[in-house]
Amino acid sequence: MSPTPQWVKDLKPAPPQGTDLIKAEREKSKINVDKLSNFLFTKEVLDRQDKILGILKAEKVFDKSQNYFDGRVDRFKTALARAKRLRQLQVKHKWDRDEYMMANELISEPGPYGLHASMYLTTLRDQGTPEQHKLFLEPAENYRAIGCYAQTELGHGSNVRGLETTATWNPEDKTFTLHSPHLTASKWWIGSLGRTANHAVVMAQLIIGGKPYGPHPFVCQIRDMKTHEPLEGIHVGDIGPKFGYNTMDNGFLLLNKVKIPHINMLAKFSGVDPETNKYIKPASASLVYGTLTWVRSTIVLQSGGVLARGVTIATRYASVRRQFQDRDAPSDASGENQVLNYTMVQFRLLPLLASTFALHFTGKAMMAMYQENQKMMKADASKDSDTNRGAGPEETHSGSDLLADLHATSCGLKALGSTTAAEGLEVCRRACGGHGYSSFGGIGAWYADYLPTTTWEGDNYMLTQQVARYLLKSARAVLKGNAPNNDTTRIFTTFLQKQDMGAAHDVLGSDSDLVAAFAWRTSFLTFEALKHRDAEKNSWNSLLVDFWRLSTAHSQYLVVKNFYDALQSESLRYELDPQTIDVMHKLFRLYALNTLEKEASEFYSSSAVTVRQIQLARTKSVMKLLEEIRPHALRLVDAWHFPDWQLDSSLGREDGKVYEDMFYRASELNPLNGLTIDPYPDSDVLVKRDETAKFKSKL
Amino acid sequence: MSPTPQWVKDLKPAPPQGTDLIKAEREKSKINVDKLSNFLFTKEVLDRQDKILGILKAEKVFDKSQNYFDGRVDRFKTALARAKRLRQLQVKHKWDRDEYMMANELISEPGPYGLHASMYLTTLRDQGTPEQHKLFLEPAENYRAIGCYAQTELGHGSNVRGLETTATWNPEDKTFTLHSPHLTASKWWIGSLGRTANHAVVMAQLIIGGKPYGPHPFVCQIRDMKTHEPLEGIHVGDIGPKFGYNTMDNGFLLLNKVKIPHINMLAKFSGVDPETNKYIKPASASLVYGTLTWVRSTIVLQSGGVLARGVTIATRYASVRRQFQDRDAPSDASGENQVLNYTMVQFRLLPLLASTFALHFTGKAMMAMYQENQKMMKADASKDSDTNRGAGPEETHSGSDLLADLHATSCGLKALGSTTAAEGLEVCRRACGGHGYSSFGGIGAWYADYLPTTTWEGDNYMLTQQVARYLLKSARAVLKGNAPNNDTTRIFTTFLQKQDMGAAHDVLGSDSDLVAAFAWRTSFLTFEALKHRDAEKNSWNSLLVDFWRLSTAHSQYLVVKNFYDALQSESLRYELDPQTIDVMHKLFRLYALNTLEKEASEFYSSSAVTVRQIQLARTKSVMKLLEEIRPHALRLVDAWHFPDWQLDSSLGREDGKVYEDMFYRASELNPLNGLTIDPYPDSDVLVKRDETAKFKSKL
Repeated sequence: MSPTPQWVKDLKPAPPQGTDLIKAEREKSKINVDKLSNFLFTKEVLDRQDKILGILKAEKVFDKSQNYFDGRVDRFKTALARAKRLRQLQVKHKWDRDEYMMANELISEPGPYGLHASMYLTTLRDQGTPEQHKLFLEPAENYRAIGCYAQTELGHGSNVRGLETTATWNPEDKTFTLHSPHLTASKWWIGSLGRTANHAVVMAQLIIGGKPYGPHPFVCQIRDMKTHEPLEGIHVGDIGPKFGYNTMDNGFLLLNKVKIPHINMLAKFSGVDPETNKYIKPASASLVYGTLTWVRSTIVLQSGGVLARGVTIATRYASVRRQFQDRDAPSDASGENQVLNYTMVQFRLLPLLASTFALHFTGKAMMAMYQENQKMMKADASKDSDTNRGAGPEETHSGSDLLADLHATSCGLKALGSTTAAEGLEVCRRACGGHGYSSFGGIGAWYADYLPTTTWEGDNYMLTQQVARYLLKSARAVLKGNAPNNDTTRIFTTFLQKQDMGAAHDVLGSDSDLVAAFAWRTSFLTFEALKHRDAEKNSWNSLLVDFWRLSTAHSQYLVVKNFYDALQSESLRYELDPQTIDVMHKLFRLYALNTLEKEASEFYSSSAVTVRQIQLARTKSVMKLLEEIRPHALRLVDAWHFPDWQLDSSLGREDGKVYEDMFYRASELNPLNGLTIDPYPDSDVLVKRDETAKFKSKL
Repeated sequence: MSPTPQWVKDLKPAPPQGTDLIKAEREKSKINVDKLSNFLFTKEVLDRQDKILGILKAEKVFDKSQNYFDGRVDRFKTALARAKRLRQLQVKHKWDRDEYMMANELISEPGPYGLHASMYLTTLRDQGTPEQHKLFLEPAENYRAIGCYAQTELGHGSNVRGLETTATWNPEDKTFTLHSPHLTASKWWIGSLGRTANHAVVMAQLIIGGKPYGPHPFVCQIRDMKTHEPLEGIHVGDIGPKFGYNTMDNGFLLLNKVKIPHINMLAKFSGVDPETNKYIKPASASLVYGTLTWVRSTIVLQSGGVLARGVTIATRYASVRRQFQDRDAPSDASGENQVLNYTMVQFRLLPLLASTFALHFTGKAMMAMYQENQKMMKADASKDSDTNRGAGPEETHSGSDLLADLHATSCGLKALGSTTAAEGLEVCRRACGGHGYSSFGGIGAWYADYLPTTTWEGDNYMLTQQVARYLLKSARAVLKGNAPNNDTTRIFTTFLQKQDMGAAHDVLGSDSDLVAAFAWRTSFLTFEALKHRDAEKNSWNSLLVDFWRLSTAHSQYLVVKNFYDALQSESLRYELDPQTIDVMHKLFRLYALNTLEKEASEFYSSSAVTVRQIQLARTKSVMKLLEEIRPHALRLVDAWHFPDWQLDSSLGREDGKVYEDMFYRASELNPLNGLTIDPYPDSDVLVKRDETAKFKSKL
C-alpha cells in the first residue's frame, strides 16, 4: 500500500459541505436539545456519561478503529484485553454498578466477562445461602473465580423443564453427580463459558432416589484455576461464530459424571436435606421469577435507546446526503435534494423516531411499576408460600395478581419492544442506501449484536402466549365479577358496557380517544379469543396466531398509553419549553396513528374506528405530522445524546463529515489494502506483497 | 485444545433421532420430489448441477469448512484462490456460461472475478466497436486483463446523471482526460476493483468544448500489468468491510487528470468524432436499457431460489426440532412436540414456501417476456432512433410501449421479489430460534450476502416511482381512449366499466376471482393516485408513499397472476401427478389469500372484497391451508434440490443430523478453541497457549 498522494489529501467533497448542511438542518428547529436530554436521562446520568467517556477514550485498548476489520479470534482477544482493563478501571475508580454499565454501553460490544458480571453474580447473590456467598460469591466478586450461567442446552431452549442434564443426589457420600446423558444435553449458547469461565452455575434436573424434582442450580468448577485447562470429565469450548456477538465466547459444556459436594447446590429456596435425603421445597418462587420480570423490563427500557442509535445515524446521514432533484422543482434549479426532504424517507424514519420516545417512556413506566411491585411483594412474601413449587415462569399467574399483571406486561412489551428495535434498525440501515451496507455505517454490527434479544429471555413469539393467557384469565374474571381492579380489567369492563352501543372514538381529534381506541381493540380481540377457546373449544395450538395478534395489540395499547401518560406528567411541563412539548405531542400522535393505520384491519373489524377514519389517518394526519416533525428530526436525535465514539459511524457523525470519514477509514485503516495480489488465473501466486500487519501495528 | 475424549464421541442426541424424524416427516406426503424438481428446473439443469458439484467437491480449495471462521483478509485470499481455480476448471472442462454460473451458485460466495466475468465483459461486448472488441474484450475474455465496471460514486448512487467524474475531450492530442474533481467523485462500491482489477470501465461525464454530454463509458487501465501497482494519477483500494459480501473487493478509485486515447471511449452507440471534435449521438439507447431490464428480470427469477434456501433450512430444522408438549395433549403424553406442528411456525414459514414458487413462476414468465421483447425490439430498432439520447433508464417509457411495459414490470417485480426474499430469509432465520443465530445455521451469511440486492440495480423504494409513473401514464391513455392493448390497460378498462356497479369477487371460492380482486385493487389505487396528481395537483414528493403502495400492489397482482397462469399450463398437467398439482393450487391460494389478508385495508377501501371476506380469509381459509400444506412442506422444499454442500448448514441437513453437525463444527473446526487464555483481570497475560493455526492446517 503506497502512501496516500498529496492530490488525494487535497480533495474535498463536492459542495455544499456536510458540516454546513447539518448546521443548517439544526437551525431549522428551536428545540432545546440539552433540556430534552436532561428530561429523558437526568443531568446526573449525562454527567456520568461524560466522565466515563473521558476515561475510556484515554485508554489505547478501547480504540475502536480496527473493530470492523478483525476476524473472530483477534476480536475475541481484543475484547478480553478490554474486559480486563475495564475491570481494572472499575477497581481503580471505584465504579458502582451504574458506572460500570455505562462504560459497557459506551464500549458497545459484548465482552467475555459479560455473563460473569451479570448472571453469575446475580444468581449466586439471589439464590445462594450466606455460607455459599462466602464460598462462591466472594471470590467471584473479586474476579478470583470467573463464572457463567449454564441453562440452555443444544436441544432445549425455552422449555426449561425439558433440560436433560441431571444432578443425582448420592446419599452415601453426600454429593451430586452432574451428568450429560446425551449430546443434546450439552449446555449451549452459554455466554463467557467458551474460553473464559472457570466456574458455571449449571441448571440440572435434580434426582433424589430415582425421582426427578425439576431443574435446580448447581455451582460447578469447570477449569483448573491455574492452568485454565478443563477438569477431568468436562468437555468445554466455544460454540463457534455467530451472526453477531462474536466478541463473546458463547460456549458448550458436556459433563461426564462429575461429582460436586452438597454445598454446591444453591440452596436459598430449595435443596436436599443431607440427613434425611429429602427434598426441601422452595418457600416462594415468586421472588425468583421477579428477576425474569426485571430482566424483561430492562429490555423494554433499552429498546428505545437501541433503536435510537439507528435513527440517529440514518437521520444525520439523510440530512447530509442529497439525491436527485425534486421532480416538481423548476428545471433550472441547481443541486440535488436533501434525502430527508423525501416523504418516502420521512415515512420510514420518523415513525421510528417516535417509537424511540414511546419505548423509552414505556420502559421507564415499567421499571417504576416493577419497583413498586417488588416492595409490595416483599411485604406479601410470607403469605404467598408454596403454590409455585418448581414451576416455570409461565405458571406465575397463579401467584400474586400483581406479579401476574407485571409478568404479562413485561412479556408482551419485551416482545414488542425488542422486535420494534431490531426490525427498526434494519429499516434505518436500508434508509441509508448503499452506504448503510458498509460496516462504517455503524448500524449493521449494532443490529447483528442486538438480534438475539428477540430470542433470549423468552422468544418473542413464545412470550405472546403468556400475555394471551393472562388476558383470557382477566376476561373470565371480569365476566364472573371477581376481577381485581387494575387497568386491564377496567378497559375490559368499559368495553363490555359499551359493546352494544358501539364506540365513537374521535381518533383524529382527541388524544385520549386515541388511547381508548387501542384499549377497545385489545378488549375486542380478547373476548373474541375467549369465545374461540371457551365457547367454541378450539385447541390452544389452533389459536396461537390469534394470541400473537392479541399480545401485539395489547402491548401496542400499553405503549400508546404510557407515552400518553408521560406527556401528562408534571415534570414534563416543568422541564420542557412549550415548543418541545408540542413536538412531543406530535410524536405521540405519529406513533399512535401510524400504528393504527398499519394495523387498520383489526381496528375496524372491532369497530373501534371507521374505515373513513383510517383513510384520513394516513392520507391527512400521518403525512401532515411527518411534515411538521421533519424540521425537528435532527435535534430530536441529538437529544438522545450519543457520543460519536459510541456510535462509531461515518454516516452518523454529529458534524456531518460523512464522506471524509468513509474515505479515511477505507483508505487509511483497511488492512486489506495492504495486500498486493497477482490477478491472473494461470498464476498460482496469490499474494505478491502482504503488508496487512502494518495496519494493526499502526495502533 | 485437548483431543475430544472418547466419552464425548460416544454421545448421541436424545431420542428420537433427527434421521428418524425427518424420514417419518417425508413419509407424510406422496409428492414425487424428482418430478416436481424436473418441472421447476428441467432435467438438463439438474444433471448439470450434479456434474459440476462432483467436480467442485473433488477440489480442496473449495472446501467450505473454514468459511464461517475466517476474517476478512483470509476470506478474500481464499476467494481469490477459488476464483482462479474456477477459471482454470472453466478452461479445462470447456464450461459454457450456464455451467460457469452453476459452479458459482454452488460455491455461493461472491468472488473477486465476479464483476469482471459479468459487467466488464458484458459492457465491452455490448457497447464496444469491433476494433474495441479486439483491443479490450479479447484479452479480458482470456483473463489477460481483469476489469470492473466503475459507475457508482461515493456521493452518487441511483442518480447516474449526477456523477461527478469527468472525461474531457482534448482536441489537440485526440485524448480524453479522466478526472475526479472532488472526494465525492471517488468511484465507490465497485466490485473487483479494490484489489483485483487492472482495468475499469469508468462512467464519466463527457465534456467537449466545455459542454457536458452526460455520462459515457471509458476503458481505463488502472494498475500495472506486471507489478499490479496503481498507475500514476490513480488512487485505488478496497472500501472496507461490509455487512456481507466480504469475499468481494468492492473498491474505490480516484483519478487525477489521467489521459486515455480516443479509442478508449466505448463507441458502439455514441462517441466523439476525432476530426470534427463533435459528439456523435447514440442511434438507439433502448437496446442498452434492455440490459438493465434483463438484469432485473434475473433478480426476480433468482429471488424464489434465494428465499427457498432459507425456507429449506427452516423447514428441515422444524421437522427435527421439538419443543414443549402440546398444551391440549393428555398430561401423560410423553415427548415434546415437533416445532413444525405449531400453527405459529406454520404461519411464518408456509406462506414463504408458497412465495418461493410464486416468485419462481413469475421470474420464468418475466424472462420469457424479456426474450419475446428483445426479438421485437431488434426488428423495431431502426425505427426507434434518437429519442432517448443519453437519458437514464427512468426516461425509457418514452421509447417503445413494449419496453415501457417490460421496464415497469421488471422494476416493480425486482423490488417486490428481492424485498420478499431478503425479509423472508430473516423470518426463516428467526423461525430457527436460537440456533438460527449461529453461523452454522447457514441462513445468516446467505442473508447478509443477499441484502445489497434490495439496493443495487435500482433501490427498491426508488424503483416504485417508475412503476407508478408507468401506471399513471397507462391510466391516462385508457381515459383518453388511445391506450395500447396490454394486460395493464385491460384491467384498467374492466375497472372503469364496473366501478359504479361495484365488484363481487368470490375470493374464497374462485381462483380467477382472486386474481381479479388483485387487479381491481391495482386499478383502484392507480386512479386514486391519478386523481391526486392530475386533478388535485399534489406534488410528486407528497405522493411517494402512495406510489410505493401502488407499485407493491401492482407487483403483487403480477405475482398472483403469473402463479395462476403457471398452474393453467399444459406442461404442468403433463409433468405432474394430480396430488402435486392439488398442493400447488393450495400454495397459490395460500400466497394470494395471505397477501390479501396482510394488505386487507387496501382491499376493502377499494371495495374489491368485503370486511367479512377478509376475516374469513384468515380465520378459515389461511389456517386451513396451513394445515393441508403442512404434511407436504418437507417434500416441497426437497424439490428445490439444494445439495447439502451448497446450503452449508447444520440445521438444513437433508438427513436431519442437526445436532451432531452443530457439535462437530463447534468442537472440531472452531479455531477459537485453540486459544487457552488467562482469565484473571489482574494478569496482563491474555493468551497462555495459541493453537488456532492448527485448525487451518488441518485442511
